[in-house]
Amino acid sequence: MTAKPSPRGVFVPACTPFQADLSVDSKLFVAHCKWLLNEGANGLAVFGTTSEANSLSAGERTEALEQLIAAGISPALLMPGTGCCALPDTVALTRHAVGQGCMGVLLLPPFYYKGVSDDGLYAGIAELIQRVGDRRLRVYLYHIPPMASVGFSLALIARLLKDFPGTVVGVKDSSGDWKNTAAMLREFPGFEVFPGSETFLLDGLRNGGTGCISATANINVGAMRELIDNWTGPDADAKQQRLTALRAAVQRYPLVPANKAILARLQGAAGWNVVRPPLTALTREAQDQLFGAVEALGFELDATAATA
Amino acid sequence: MTAKPSPRGVFVPACTPFQADLSVDSKLFVAHCKWLLNEGANGLAVFGTTSEANSLSAGERTEALEQLIAAGISPALLMPGTGCCALPDTVALTRHAVGQGCMGVLLLPPFYYKGVSDDGLYAGIAELIQRVGDRRLRVYLYHIPPMASVGFSLALIARLLKDFPGTVVGVKDSSGDWKNTAAMLREFPGFEVFPGSETFLLDGLRNGGTGCISATANINVGAMRELIDNWTGPDADAKQQRLTALRAAVQRYPLVPANKAILARLQGAAGWNVVRPPLTALTREAQDQLFGAVEALGFELDATAATA
Repeated sequence: MTAKPSPRGVFVPACTPFQADLSVDSKLFVAHCKWLLNEGANGLAVFGTTSEANSLSAGERTEALEQLIAAGISPALLMPGTGCCALPDTVALTRHAVGQGCMGVLLLPPFYYKGVSDDGLYAGIAELIQRVGDRRLRVYLYHIPPMASVGFSLALIARLLKDFPGTVVGVKDSSGDWKNTAAMLREFPGFEVFPGSETFLLDGLRNGGTGCISATANINVGAMRELIDNWTGPDADAKQQRLTALRAAVQRYPLVPANKAILARLQGAAGWNVVRPPLTALTREAQDQLFGAVEALGFELDATAATA
Repeated sequence: MTAKPSPRGVFVPACTPFQADLSVDSKLFVAHCKWLLNEGANGLAVFGTTSEANSLSAGERTEALEQLIAAGISPALLMPGTGCCALPDTVALTRHAVGQGCMGVLLLPPFYYKGVSDDGLYAGIAELIQRVGDRRLRVYLYHIPPMASVGFSLALIARLLKDFPGTVVGVKDSSGDWKNTAAMLREFPGFEVFPGSETFLLDGLRNGGTGCISATANINVGAMRELIDNWTGPDADAKQQRLTALRAAVQRYPLVPANKAILARLQGAAGWNVVRPPLTALTREAQDQLFGAVEALGFELDATAATA
């Protein structure tokens, strides 16, 4: 836990597959995570928004995390989401992740109450860090106001960095606002800033960014890794344009079922189309439109790459 | 569970007291709930927004519910909130509440994902009802878009009433929009519609409403009950005006800490001022302003009524 590799690269908020009865399909989950690492993922930000983590109970999350590690995935590659609405749940999940040796946790703010103050968010994080009480803890703030409605202001981040150096170490910025990402990169040198979309991957890397954590890394992680490994190369902008085009095509649809529909094709596993309520699977028609759009961009949808 | 008392009256989303270490103060919680019933509450909608329920773990909720019942509070008076983001949690809490004999559950929709469809929300409720699998289940929908961002449309309610008659039986409408409440009352005869604020109590009663479930019932339930019991009387409008004025004075402040600050005075128990993050207690200055405002309305803040 001493040396920090930099840049971290692309961490995938791995989709969580479900059986028809909505239980977690552990076998396919493990296979998917291994497949992502094999495809080029630098790490896995399991239990994020794209993972339907907030549709999982705390017990389901800890069990699935343990299964990944038991299957041979190094916890040094894992940044599980642990932020819940209730502090006791956040503490329990975070303590568990640290105990498992995970390289960090991705921390959503408590997202039920709206219009809360920076003081209130700060108090929750301070309490979390004190309760977990483990020097190995590394917190990545998960800033996703379009979904959580509650987020981390620059002023709050500055305060956390000052009071918890070496513990609060990074952010996933899913604001979708490059200006905000750029401000984080500019104001907090050494802070690990992951844009929440590969649309900003190259801009991020050119400004000190760490990589990205993106929903569509579930289906396109290889190309993201290629750009990360060659971002100073002459064709970096062309690579970025291809990434951006694919992202744009996919995010015309709800991101979770769209990713899952494509995974069903890529891995030849129809079970991927199961989502938990309140999400709904794409209609057959929407799937066909999505497949057509991504194939038109040269994206291969056949299942030959599947390892599941 | 056969005859439905009508109108139900005022159900209180009882505030949850915490010790200084943020653990639930069970003794004060039981005392508060008994005090509310003694003050005139027709029932208790424990574990609502005002209860900081989403800041409690599922285990804390089931334990606190059992403590109320063990202390002699009839489950026929209890409508606990059980709606979580994750279906397994919602199922577990709902099954527990039904098993304890509670008269109903107040069901928040899963509130993390935004922009979800009626189909997705419907699927979650259908799954819940099927999994709980108990004819005693009575579901009250908790419509609070200002906080949850996700809500129950009239079209979705119509569909649920058609498919789950006798199970989906009512709603708490915390939209703050009387037109929405009026539409529910008009379109769904027999559906138990609780406005989420006493501001609409008399309008509700005059249009077939069931009573109200309101944050400020924690501090003013007696006056609400008096209006409910005398809503056809000549001074009903004057009673309503007094309720409305107090509500307006309190809701100038964040409702949870404002209620708690007043409870600390009313019950002579300073511990009431503890809230869980991300909420924050009112400053001393804000408390003084609040106290001055409610006293100016003739509201008594001395602690003589306390039973704790």
